Amino acid sequence: MKKISINENAYPYPMPMVVLGTLVEDRPNFMAVGWVSRVNFQPPMIAVALGKGHYTNGGIHATGAFSVNIPGIDLMAKVDYCGLVSGRDADKSALFTVVRGEKTGAPLIEECPLSMECKLTNVLELPSNELFVGEIVGAYADPNRCSAGKPDITKIRPFTLTMPDNRYWEVGASAGKAWSIGKNLNR
Amino acid sequence: MKKISINENAYPYPMPMVVLGTLVEDRPNFMAVGWVSRVNFQPPMIAVALGKGHYTNGGIHATGAFSVNIPGIDLMAKVDYCGLVSGRDADKSALFTVVRGEKTGAPLIEECPLSMECKLTNVLELPSNELFVGEIVGAYADPNRCSAGKPDITKIRPFTLTMPDNRYWEVGASAGKAWSIGKNLNR
Repeated sequence: MKKISINENAYPYPMPMVVLGTLVEDRPNFMAVGWVSRVNFQPPMIAVALGKGHYTNGGIHATGAFSVNIPGIDLMAKVDYCGLVSGRDADKSALFTVVRGEKTGAPLIEECPLSMECKLTNVLELPSNELFVGEIVGAYADPNRCSAGKPDITKIRPFTLTMPDNRYWEVGASAGKAWSIGKNLNR
Repeated sequence: MKKISINENAYPYPMPMVVLGTLVEDRPNFMAVGWVSRVNFQPPMIAVALGKGHYTNGGIHATGAFSVNIPGIDLMAKVDYCGLVSGRDADKSALFTVVRGEKTGAPLIEECPLSMECKLTNVLELPSNELFVGEIVGAYADPNRCSAGKPDITKIRPFTLTMPDNRYWEVGASAGKAWSIGKNLNR
């Protein structure tokens, strides 16, 4: 192998930055999360991995619901703030315009061009984190940031995170069509 | 709410594109995956969500190991091909230069600038997918694509996937420092 061994604390990056919304003691709370993925196709399900000490975790356990909000890059400073300050120490409920999810009551962020409300289905206990899995029971998009009724990444302008260098990145140029460009691979 | 309700089949995008390596019936096999995330901080653990019908799943169950390889954008067509063709129908073992992981024997892709070998720790059964969780027991990087001994995203040039429009995207411009730019937020 020509590669060199590096620290095992490695990442499948770049990771999408989202804001998790929960009700904690009846107050909307928001947390910045980069460890998130779709995990089931039908029904649509999503998972987020949160360190065990977070204020958010109690809210998910208590309400059985959470929201996943995709911020545009215009919200980057507010999203970063959500990752710096715990809901235990600061009221983050006024940071965004809050709308309640129609199905779960989870707090959604109006300013985020795409919001999903999730009903908790599974919790996987891991050594230092809890993996919360939820079914997406409602999804809402800003019509001005859709094309043909679907979210358009060039209008949403989400951003990504790399670790351990801890940097945010814009989405770059369109690079090709998936499940397509490999069809004519000359092997 | 000013947003409109859309189909629940929504995504936390952009999603990182990786190639999963497994031994299936003693032959290296590779699968393109966009549903991947770190899920535990210490020890470092990673999860991949695979549809239940895939050829790869049997290999992970049988060997208790898999690799996660981060391709550069130069490998995009080959990665796409891995997502188009099943290992049941085509031998993908010669598509890349294969190196065996030192700890698990899982097949790693030499051409990918970053490879992680994982030891299976948990399987979460979901309705249409299996979520495989593994501990990263070895990580290997191309020294020419590192800076100060750590993977450098500007040299690795990974790419991302959006669904349901099914497009690949380059990583764009550096946009800010995480856990930092929110410090001086004027609220």
